[in-house]
Amino acid sequence: MPRISRRAFVAAATLLPLGASASSMEIKKDKPKLVHHVFFWLKDPSSAADRDKLLAGVKTLKNIETIKMLHVGVPASTEKRDVVDNSYHVSELMFFDNVEDQKVYQDHPIHQKFIKEHSMLWDKVVVYDVMESV
Amino acid sequence: MPRISRRAFVAAATLLPLGASASSMEIKKDKPKLVHHVFFWLKDPSSAADRDKLLAGVKTLKNIETIKMLHVGVPASTEKRDVVDNSYHVSELMFFDNVEDQKVYQDHPIHQKFIKEHSMLWDKVVVYDVMESV
Repeated sequence: MPRISRRAFVAAATLLPLGASASSMEIKKDKPKLVHHVFFWLKDPSSAADRDKLLAGVKTLKNIETIKMLHVGVPASTEKRDVVDNSYHVSELMFFDNVEDQKVYQDHPIHQKFIKEHSMLWDKVVVYDVMESV
Repeated sequence: MPRISRRAFVAAATLLPLGASASSMEIKKDKPKLVHHVFFWLKDPSSAADRDKLLAGVKTLKNIETIKMLHVGVPASTEKRDVVDNSYHVSELMFFDNVEDQKVYQDHPIHQKFIKEHSMLWDKVVVYDVMESV
């Protein structure tokens, strides 16, 4: 991650704590506002090897400089409720500063390589893009 | 937000930057690992007033002390693609340290008050709980 991006992230993180006294203008300027959340369903849900390969692939995306934060995971062992969808196999959650940075990610060679080398593993993908409401 | 929680969050955020040299043990210990992502579909999608009331309601949840980060938003103006679901109206994304802290949130009076005062606004809710894979 380039030094400038890390500095920018730390600056943003300093503003992130809930209840902090930063003005809304500062938060608007510095906090990563765009969430990109992707859920993958494997072609072969019984294959732990396929899941692990996909998890490892998603983690290579962290080297794309416009990603401000990356969380990669699997269904949590929270309470089972009708509203909870725990049918997916891998989750990829990223924060970007804005829509333009997310487009850089979409077109980035590392992302294209990830798709080329892993898309045979998944059966379905659902994406949610969320812009912060301030 | 209690002082101790804010300090803990800042400490965690310091470890969050991608590519930082913190050991994996430190990251495991301090980074909020559990994502709770809720999508709401309004009963009346044409009502901006209902959407704004729901957005304001979700924002009251930030006062629950086990929430380490809260992102509240609406569909982003990213590129329209088949895999992107932009049919929801409000998104609520939270980070917790663990499943126990998320249970505290579920049962918290502020959360129960939010449900009681806003559930008449939504037609559908979908929840994804994700545990980080490290």
